[in-house]
Amino acid sequence: MHEAIDLSPDQCERLLRAGVAGRVALSSPDGPHIAPVNYSVVGPAIVIRTSPYSVLGTYGRGSMLAFEVDQFDHDRWRGWSVVARGRSDVVTDPLELERIRTTWEPHPWAAGNRSMYLRLRWSELTGRQIGTGWDPVASLPVRRAV
Amino acid sequence: MHEAIDLSPDQCERLLRAGVAGRVALSSPDGPHIAPVNYSVVGPAIVIRTSPYSVLGTYGRGSMLAFEVDQFDHDRWRGWSVVARGRSDVVTDPLELERIRTTWEPHPWAAGNRSMYLRLRWSELTGRQIGTGWDPVASLPVRRAV
Repeated sequence: MHEAIDLSPDQCERLLRAGVAGRVALSSPDGPHIAPVNYSVVGPAIVIRTSPYSVLGTYGRGSMLAFEVDQFDHDRWRGWSVVARGRSDVVTDPLELERIRTTWEPHPWAAGNRSMYLRLRWSELTGRQIGTGWDPVASLPVRRAV
Repeated sequence: MHEAIDLSPDQCERLLRAGVAGRVALSSPDGPHIAPVNYSVVGPAIVIRTSPYSVLGTYGRGSMLAFEVDQFDHDRWRGWSVVARGRSDVVTDPLELERIRTTWEPHPWAAGNRSMYLRLRWSELTGRQIGTGWDPVASLPVRRAV
């Protein structure tokens, strides 16, 4: 059995800011949904592009969302995960949209109409690492400057 | 922009059965939650071990759950994801528990009291791959026989 250790708020935020893909969960009338998404962190918020007609665009706007990123090394039995929770809103302010586009040139992997920018200002940010004696932040692949 | 293609039900099930770690989402009175979990597929159901006192054990029993596995190759801009949704129940039948333990010697990564076996019999199973010209099932790492 491998020890699980809580990550510090600073570690959580650095891991969150370093990522490009995660999963978002939302509640809908027919139960929870989960979807893999590309994302960016702009200021103290996660920004996701989606279609206004998607499940996320329909039931995930103006509601509580949960967002998760993780990385697991199955060979070495170690890994980490970070979960952010908070209320979402749709970014409509032109200056704010400009700021998001400047900070993050969005590259959703999948094609489609993703005209809606959904922002999750987290009110909870928690994380854990499995296995001791290593630093998840230092072990990040170089994909984007932390 | 990279093309997204729906996976067949057979591909979804093979990818799901080949995995060992995913994320489960549930709805709670204060909104959705998401948690990384180890899992196994036993018969036509996903089995997750959890603590009866966890958020999952409290709000995820006898309710709709969404479960996701994915794999992304950021260098090659390709990947896949599979989402299973359905109602959960707690496995209490001794014969069924024996079957689960025989099929899957459970190794949750994180320590803790995980005495509850939660079963998700999926009623929806969908998946997508990003990028054409490759087969996600054939590209699985060898971790468990498919």
